[in-house]
Amino acid sequence: MHPLVVTGLVKRALREDWGQGDLTTLAIVPPGMSGRATVVCRSGGVVAGLPVAECVFGMADADIRFNPLVAEGDRVPPACPVAAVEGPVAGILQAERVALNFLQRLSGIATVTREAVEAVVAYGVRILDTRKTTPTLRALERYAVRVGGGLNHRYDLGSMALIKDNHRRAAGSITEAVRRVRANSGPAVRIEVEVETLDELEEAVASGVDLVMLDNMDVATMAEAVRRVAGRVPLEASGGIRLQDLPAVAATGVNYISLGYLTTRAPSLDMSLELEPESFTPQPAEVR
Amino acid sequence: MHPLVVTGLVKRALREDWGQGDLTTLAIVPPGMSGRATVVCRSGGVVAGLPVAECVFGMADADIRFNPLVAEGDRVPPACPVAAVEGPVAGILQAERVALNFLQRLSGIATVTREAVEAVVAYGVRILDTRKTTPTLRALERYAVRVGGGLNHRYDLGSMALIKDNHRRAAGSITEAVRRVRANSGPAVRIEVEVETLDELEEAVASGVDLVMLDNMDVATMAEAVRRVAGRVPLEASGGIRLQDLPAVAATGVNYISLGYLTTRAPSLDMSLELEPESFTPQPAEVR
Amino acid sequence: MHPLVVTGLVKRALREDWGQGDLTTLAIVPPGMSGRATVVCRSGGVVAGLPVAECVFGMADADIRFNPLVAEGDRVPPACPVAAVEGPVAGILQAERVALNFLQRLSGIATVTREAVEAVVAYGVRILDTRKTTPTLRALERYAVRVGGGLNHRYDLGSMALIKDNHRRAAGSITEAVRRVRANSGPAVRIEVEVETLDELEEAVASGVDLVMLDNMDVATMAEAVRRVAGRVPLEASGGIRLQDLPAVAATGVNYISLGYLTTRAPSLDMSLELEPESFTPQPAEVR
Amino acid sequence: MHPLVVTGLVKRALREDWGQGDLTTLAIVPPGMSGRATVVCRSGGVVAGLPVAECVFGMADADIRFNPLVAEGDRVPPACPVAAVEGPVAGILQAERVALNFLQRLSGIATVTREAVEAVVAYGVRILDTRKTTPTLRALERYAVRVGGGLNHRYDLGSMALIKDNHRRAAGSITEAVRRVRANSGPAVRIEVEVETLDELEEAVASGVDLVMLDNMDVATMAEAVRRVAGRVPLEASGGIRLQDLPAVAATGVNYISLGYLTTRAPSLDMSLELEPESFTPQPAEVR
Amino acid sequence: MHPLVVTGLVKRALREDWGQGDLTTLAIVPPGMSGRATVVCRSGGVVAGLPVAECVFGMADADIRFNPLVAEGDRVPPACPVAAVEGPVAGILQAERVALNFLQRLSGIATVTREAVEAVVAYGVRILDTRKTTPTLRALERYAVRVGGGLNHRYDLGSMALIKDNHRRAAGSITEAVRRVRANSGPAVRIEVEVETLDELEEAVASGVDLVMLDNMDVATMAEAVRRVAGRVPLEASGGIRLQDLPAVAATGVNYISLGYLTTRAPSLDMSLELEPESFTPQPAEVR
Amino acid sequence: MHPLVVTGLVKRALREDWGQGDLTTLAIVPPGMSGRATVVCRSGGVVAGLPVAECVFGMADADIRFNPLVAEGDRVPPACPVAAVEGPVAGILQAERVALNFLQRLSGIATVTREAVEAVVAYGVRILDTRKTTPTLRALERYAVRVGGGLNHRYDLGSMALIKDNHRRAAGSITEAVRRVRANSGPAVRIEVEVETLDELEEAVASGVDLVMLDNMDVATMAEAVRRVAGRVPLEASGGIRLQDLPAVAATGVNYISLGYLTTRAPSLDMSLELEPESFTPQPAEVR
Repeated sequence: MHPLVVTGLVKRALREDWGQGDLTTLAIVPPGMSGRATVVCRSGGVVAGLPVAECVFGMADADIRFNPLVAEGDRVPPACPVAAVEGPVAGILQAERVALNFLQRLSGIATVTREAVEAVVAYGVRILDTRKTTPTLRALERYAVRVGGGLNHRYDLGSMALIKDNHRRAAGSITEAVRRVRANSGPAVRIEVEVETLDELEEAVASGVDLVMLDNMDVATMAEAVRRVAGRVPLEASGGIRLQDLPAVAATGVNYISLGYLTTRAPSLDMSLELEPESFTPQPAEVR
Repeated sequence: MHPLVVTGLVKRALREDWGQGDLTTLAIVPPGMSGRATVVCRSGGVVAGLPVAECVFGMADADIRFNPLVAEGDRVPPACPVAAVEGPVAGILQAERVALNFLQRLSGIATVTREAVEAVVAYGVRILDTRKTTPTLRALERYAVRVGGGLNHRYDLGSMALIKDNHRRAAGSITEAVRRVRANSGPAVRIEVEVETLDELEEAVASGVDLVMLDNMDVATMAEAVRRVAGRVPLEASGGIRLQDLPAVAATGVNYISLGYLTTRAPSLDMSLELEPESFTPQPAEVR
Repeated sequence: MHPLVVTGLVKRALREDWGQGDLTTLAIVPPGMSGRATVVCRSGGVVAGLPVAECVFGMADADIRFNPLVAEGDRVPPACPVAAVEGPVAGILQAERVALNFLQRLSGIATVTREAVEAVVAYGVRILDTRKTTPTLRALERYAVRVGGGLNHRYDLGSMALIKDNHRRAAGSITEAVRRVRANSGPAVRIEVEVETLDELEEAVASGVDLVMLDNMDVATMAEAVRRVAGRVPLEASGGIRLQDLPAVAATGVNYISLGYLTTRAPSLDMSLELEPESFTPQPAEVR
Repeated sequence: MHPLVVTGLVKRALREDWGQGDLTTLAIVPPGMSGRATVVCRSGGVVAGLPVAECVFGMADADIRFNPLVAEGDRVPPACPVAAVEGPVAGILQAERVALNFLQRLSGIATVTREAVEAVVAYGVRILDTRKTTPTLRALERYAVRVGGGLNHRYDLGSMALIKDNHRRAAGSITEAVRRVRANSGPAVRIEVEVETLDELEEAVASGVDLVMLDNMDVATMAEAVRRVAGRVPLEASGGIRLQDLPAVAATGVNYISLGYLTTRAPSLDMSLELEPESFTPQPAEVR
Repeated sequence: MHPLVVTGLVKRALREDWGQGDLTTLAIVPPGMSGRATVVCRSGGVVAGLPVAECVFGMADADIRFNPLVAEGDRVPPACPVAAVEGPVAGILQAERVALNFLQRLSGIATVTREAVEAVVAYGVRILDTRKTTPTLRALERYAVRVGGGLNHRYDLGSMALIKDNHRRAAGSITEAVRRVRANSGPAVRIEVEVETLDELEEAVASGVDLVMLDNMDVATMAEAVRRVAGRVPLEASGGIRLQDLPAVAATGVNYISLGYLTTRAPSLDMSLELEPESFTPQPAEVR
Repeated sequence: MHPLVVTGLVKRALREDWGQGDLTTLAIVPPGMSGRATVVCRSGGVVAGLPVAECVFGMADADIRFNPLVAEGDRVPPACPVAAVEGPVAGILQAERVALNFLQRLSGIATVTREAVEAVVAYGVRILDTRKTTPTLRALERYAVRVGGGLNHRYDLGSMALIKDNHRRAAGSITEAVRRVRANSGPAVRIEVEVETLDELEEAVASGVDLVMLDNMDVATMAEAVRRVAGRVPLEASGGIRLQDLPAVAATGVNYISLGYLTTRAPSLDMSLELEPESFTPQPAEVR
């Protein structure tokens, strides 16, 4: 979460939410009024995005202090205060929605990731994300997966080769597809092949790939795949795997399980910002 | 969905997904190979985002033709083909993930919106979205709500005044808050007040606002609010309302119901792109 | 004037004025030389844009201190010092033209707005601006109108509906046009109709719009319009109204008068930056 | 007016004016309706900006045809049609305001420039602009000056050295200031010195500058300056010169007269777009 | 070289070179004059960048046709015509310098790469580039390396882990450093370790890395390293290796040799654009 | 090197080099570990770019202190420490490559410029650069030329007119070409003509240009040109001049010599960053 990555996005998000400026707050809240507020996680889950929220408040008004009350990645119970915010009330109100929008979504992703990680931790299997992320927010969503305890799969089409069904058909065979990629790639590039049958698996391993994705296989076939490969290459299970399926899949002995739902179906956590009107200084009566 | 809005976003999304370029496709698929594919909606729901997907494919390769097979906003059954894609295979493969990522998310929002709209249509109530959108994607997500049959609430902090709890406390009273906004706003600005009690409701109506939000009220209180207001000002129900609550809330006679979950908890629809290898021209054997 | 809005514009303006760098100042003025200067308003008028000027000087050199000598919105007499500037001479000289260009134009708009506001203040009528602003500088020019005491009309095509002549004709009637907008708009959207005759006015009011613009009507017709409407909906006078026309128009009882000339024909105020060479430290003799 | 320059600015201008989209037009005007319109210059003057207006309409909808009826730089009488526009009505309405805002401002600048040029043409004197332009729109405003028949002074601080009063004082003398610039500048850089007295003029000419600006001199002194310089270096008259002063200043024999008011006080020309409802296809009755 | 990558860069490059517009060409060359020109490679070498040059000419004027006379990656003799250009003379002249600047630099890189590739081709060793590229032009320079026959090393710090001296010391040992990276990285990430001694090499191989860089080793030590590793992991030679050293280094049996000089010391090829004045239409006499 | 110019470029360069983040450093180096490092110029030469390197380190981590050990423009011997860097080790490692890439390239340009300047200094001739710069990095490369003691030729096509062969042919004659430029240019614009023969030289001088470029002339002809012009206009020698040719060319009496090779063939200086592991706090053993 280096500022170089976050700052530009937060700036665009604030501009999106402010439009021509906050008509309500600027008309009502005196510039000099300051106060305290708490960010509360109503629904419970794994908190992710506190550094982003801090950046949002700081960009709205440099005088706002944002103090996390839990650590990034902590699992919190319902109604848990997760950060204290203090400073100009007008700035706090203008940052509120954007800060919560980031926090809620990232915490939602971290929460479902943590669930998945815990479901397979006993098997030594690692949970991976996919490229099924919200367009232009991939860096943040991947970060939330890491906060939840998952690992990231390839970031983009340029950071690893993944030979899918259609590539295989365009090349004529897995072996030929691997050969073509190998000839054009330097030593930084890992090659993975997606296979649907045990025969394809054999061809993939024989072609010297670095990783094989078992796509949409049933559990029994996956177990057989693990037996046949016998550690020659790591294996990734993929394709419509749900939370309840995880232990059985993990028990087959695959090394990785990748889950699209971490980023496509994670409900946002319910969070709110609660200002304490009695902390307002000066009090309204004085300013009117 | 004017190109001025979509083009820039699609360009950033493709750059995000391509990184230094598609290592796999560029190494394997010959530049001159073309073919046909189908976008399939596996899970059923309301389709939204076809113009965005068309823009994605066109930007990946101007020679790709994208033909919708259903209309934007159509509800489709599971396993329904929603668009035909034809042209250079390399371009289709490079656009696939980004196009699907847009389509899946927007269709997910349109689908939950349609459900909500249908739950209240008999009562003449309109469904509204909120500002709880994915940062920097608000325009697209609002569009998906409209495709689903909902109306948009205020776009940003500058397009309508909404006096919440904290504004009221900063001003000292609802009446004073409304007065301050009115004095600084031209005739384009609507003013809404969020109330939690019937007393606040009376003060809000008396202060001459344009709309009142009944926040977190139970159904009985909402019904009483509708009776007391008697059409003097439109009323919006808000606050944690779920799909199963909609008929009861709608029956109270409120004019609008706003639902944060349309954009915070809508699962993406499951979609895929299915290439037809037999359509590849020239066939792999010829090109190798 | 939140920094998020101004900073980007000021950066572009400085880059535009600097090109490859200030050939004269960088060659002549030693980096360590500091001094004092005064921004003087030669021609008299209402000052607007001091926060923008401060941003310009600060971006040119963070060591420059900018101290306003009058308040934003003050009316000043000719030859009035409006701000003291102190710090590195090279930075002051490089910021001078851009700071003045902003100040002169915004103050010019504030000045003609104030004149108009004062011409109608006795009638309780409010002055509005229009969308006839300098492309890409609308936010700043609207701000100057507010500093001058006016209110802003709708910011853009998306923040209010305004049914003009051509929309009416495309729809077939005012009633049908209003119906179409209403069906597609949420509660944040106000609808205004532009009318040229009293018959159109009746239809507009009957269709339930929020505001009616009396376009290019003579004063007698406007007065009749006010009588007929009798407060059912606010009325805005518009169309080629000049400063000298304002009292008569205001006396008709309309609620708002919108004036395109606030932003299309406001002459810039004449301002200059006067450096005090005797304040230069070190003095030239010492540095040569 | 190369597209590389104009396109980005026009895109920003349209985004500024559209916000979240034209609520009125999109709700009322059917996408398939087309028609004809005329851009009319109501007030008479010199037309500038037709290529910019064409770019605006084309970006709003690529199917709009924009045909100028006069040439860029033509002086037109009041109520003169200057361009015909034909195509989708919705696109024409969405482009209207932005196209007019550019045309009105640029034509206003060209008009006052032409007046000044004609006032001095008999004397062989050339009219120059200044850096007193609207921030970020300098390229366009300079272009309008050229359309009006003026020449451009230096574009920015990096394209010519201009030694002003404060530079002279920071250096200790004109001679020293010129020496410093010369030592740091390649052969592409012209050096001008601003002088207020005949003594300064002598020093400037002796120091070998390329151009001298006679700043705020009265006409008699300017005439004496011309005599003394006797063609050794070109002379520019500057400082608060008004239209009525031009013949007398030009008669002194200076080579250039620079006028800040060309860009700071040029009133926009009054222009409008007149759609022909009878040209609408299909007619409203058919589409409703 | 997908347009998404090149277009933005070419636009910035043209803006950089044009400034306020080509004073010479726009004043002299009539807009309607067209002609033919040839891009000539004076010095001989490997041509790279033709698609970029085509993009430059096309962006300067869409009517210019750019026809390559050799293929991208061809080695050409001195004074070889490499592309024919035809169309508006003004556009050709405005694009000339930028097109050549790209072509010359990229061809220079491709040329030195080809030399290196040919020096080691008999040994089956592959040549790699490094991250020592011109800031912000890495994608293009890497492309030129590929055109020259080299492979790309890791693109950026995020596309592969490379444990250097300082990382080892910060971790305490190679083993610990590898362990830390492995624990945080998904299956897309290759890990390379830079070693300077044979002991470090043993530790690296034992820690299970994917690649080892032999940094600044003499040829004898490298040969010993190859013997000891015996194919367990690929080896990369690196560190100050010059063209004349390549055969000896390649003969050691390493798999890759990375060369910083491909991008830091490659002299631009000498290229020019030769217009044929006799092809100008209309001829100057006619246009004057 | 104003921050307005450098900051944006450095930000893009860091983003280019970081991609999704430094996998190695972030996994290995504890956030709290700090240390010291030295930037060493291994190969000797003229140092340029220290302010850019400082900006790179500061943007990577605001807590890094960058202290130059030599002055910008100093010539240093091989193995010379040029800057001390102190602060968070992780930030130093992430900034290293980008900082060195800037420093190496700019210092390379300054070094070859200094060689050329010294070769002609005895003749009072000034060395100029050309527009043959790396696309989008012109401002920085020109700066390096100045650091090396050269002067800058025109920055871009808009900052001076240069009538070349093709312009002359398009106009019909040098005289006509000069006339056309003069008629369209204000007093800020210098006009240079490129000539290849003494006849063309005569015509150019007679047409009143400001500078003449002697293009690809042999030394004897250049000397004759100088004699004939006799100081009426400054002369620039240009065209394939090498370091060894400089004294003979300078001895002809020309005023300027422009050298494309300063920016097209300057090898980067060899620089490295040397961290001192013994300065790491806390030491690795403590943090593991």
